[in-house]
Amino acid sequence: MAEVARLTLEEVAALAFGVLRANGLSEAHARAIADTVTAAERDDSPAHGLFRLPGYVSSVRSGKVAPDAVPEVRELAPAVLQVDGHHGFAPLALQVGREPLAAKAREYGIAALGVTNIYHFAALWPEVTALAEMGLVAFAFTSTSSFVAPHGGVKPIYGTNPMAFAWPREGRPPLVFDQSSSASARGEIQMHQRDGKPLPAGWAIDAEGHPTTDPAAALAGAQLTFGGHKGAAIALMIELLAGALIGDVFSFEATAIDHPDGGPAIGGELMIAIDPARCIAHGHRQAQLTHAETLFAKILEQEGTRLPADRRYRARLRTPSEGVTIPQTLYDELKHLQAGGIKS
Amino acid sequence: MAEVARLTLEEVAALAFGVLRANGLSEAHARAIADTVTAAERDDSPAHGLFRLPGYVSSVRSGKVAPDAVPEVRELAPAVLQVDGHHGFAPLALQVGREPLAAKAREYGIAALGVTNIYHFAALWPEVTALAEMGLVAFAFTSTSSFVAPHGGVKPIYGTNPMAFAWPREGRPPLVFDQSSSASARGEIQMHQRDGKPLPAGWAIDAEGHPTTDPAAALAGAQLTFGGHKGAAIALMIELLAGALIGDVFSFEATAIDHPDGGPAIGGELMIAIDPARCIAHGHRQAQLTHAETLFAKILEQEGTRLPADRRYRARLRTPSEGVTIPQTLYDELKHLQAGGIKS
Repeated sequence: MAEVARLTLEEVAALAFGVLRANGLSEAHARAIADTVTAAERDDSPAHGLFRLPGYVSSVRSGKVAPDAVPEVRELAPAVLQVDGHHGFAPLALQVGREPLAAKAREYGIAALGVTNIYHFAALWPEVTALAEMGLVAFAFTSTSSFVAPHGGVKPIYGTNPMAFAWPREGRPPLVFDQSSSASARGEIQMHQRDGKPLPAGWAIDAEGHPTTDPAAALAGAQLTFGGHKGAAIALMIELLAGALIGDVFSFEATAIDHPDGGPAIGGELMIAIDPARCIAHGHRQAQLTHAETLFAKILEQEGTRLPADRRYRARLRTPSEGVTIPQTLYDELKHLQAGGIKS
Repeated sequence: MAEVARLTLEEVAALAFGVLRANGLSEAHARAIADTVTAAERDDSPAHGLFRLPGYVSSVRSGKVAPDAVPEVRELAPAVLQVDGHHGFAPLALQVGREPLAAKAREYGIAALGVTNIYHFAALWPEVTALAEMGLVAFAFTSTSSFVAPHGGVKPIYGTNPMAFAWPREGRPPLVFDQSSSASARGEIQMHQRDGKPLPAGWAIDAEGHPTTDPAAALAGAQLTFGGHKGAAIALMIELLAGALIGDVFSFEATAIDHPDGGPAIGGELMIAIDPARCIAHGHRQAQLTHAETLFAKILEQEGTRLPADRRYRARLRTPSEGVTIPQTLYDELKHLQAGGIKS
């Protein structure tokens, strides 16, 4: 059994912040990234947790990402905002845009936020969750690097292109989903490769376009969308929303200009927020949220069902007291990075 | 070979209008429905064409649908509109809401329209296409009757819950997709039953929750979502958007109160429209649309790919001159209905 290090969530946050500060991230960026890393560890989502820090650091060291970028909010229309991330990481840009977007949604009923010139290396659920905790319905869409073939094609064009949605609930965490348009995350293929396991059918094709279960062939070929042409339509929609609509790049363009340093490629993200209280006559949010609970109850009365994010929320009950474990090798690497060392 | 009747698109429109008027639909409703029926036939989508008319008629004859409802537009917030369909069919309510929604999107950058108390018996692509032809990006979401099991469950709760998206293109029809959250349309299962063919794997489960390829067992059991839990998350999102958010019913509630007359159940629909010109600084739509064309070209340079709606658009080049064919039995039934006869 591999050696592990056990950390409290406070230690996770401190370690993340320390590594980022030691590598030139401004205090605001280090804080915002440490928050998303800690939230991921809290929710037992290690792929977006401390595991990501070496990638954040290498994208700063390569000179690709501006470690002290100051995100800038602009109003483009009464209900449309833009945050220009100025080539910094996404979490701070999203944080800066959050309150203005919520205020616009409350004032106009619906509002959009285009976040541009950012490097997104986290899940999308943190940003939609934050808005739902403010009582709003929220969507987020972002594109990534070109890894996924269009339907009927064999060469990668689309990113793994996640879409997230959150619905507020009274007295409990929001209903949230955050899912890629690809059949699997890229990291899942890499983990199969590391562990010497074949891939499930339907995840990928090789460079000649033939279905493959070999992780190496998949990484050299293309990932497939989930649900065939329907998932591909969603992947295409996300390219348009997070790219052309908000004046940012498509995944294939991001890949063409990317410096492959182990961190993310540049890109954009579209968020939409809706205030339920403004969507019915004489609206008060309470009635709609109560109505939604009848649907959730109807689903959960069937054995074997669960609501999206349920697994994360169960972890959240456990990790504040129990802490989390990470591989000792990762812990050692992070301490090394924190001491200003080069990634081994 | 079954006997067919060949009709010009003008004859399709006149037949649809005549059948609807003869059965009590107001002129405005008959015109709006005939338009969507004709558009479906024009685009070689017979499942939403003249084939639907007996269902429209029986829902009027049963007293379920108000044949002369006058849809009413309300402003709920600066960027949120509601159309109350007052228990009429959807096409007129959507038509009445179209220009106000487009005007709001242009003024505020983004706007939403909740269409409530409607009976939707058509595809969603007509409404998003109309907005994209006005230069806007458009989404539509609607729930139906409960036919689809939640992920991990065995009993139907969700509707087949389609989602449509449209992106404007210069000098050609918009990029549009319109896809159910279920693995198949309900009508596809019924057609397999009619033709005595087994279903593809993954479409449905029987009443005990076991996978089935028997159409009758599937219709008595539940349909499955496309793409497993990811499609299920989308189906759930659509329930919330078209139901609780806009103060309308969920699919399972619609089914509980429905009069099963062969027509649709009552429900709601959410539309969102975004003006691309308001989503970038100093925006002019042209730059974003031109950028999008580079993505479409990149996709189409791969053999075997096509853009969504491409099949419909190819039909559209053909049917205005060639006309369309429908089964002679359907033609005879429609003439009978037009003469005021009871559906045989």
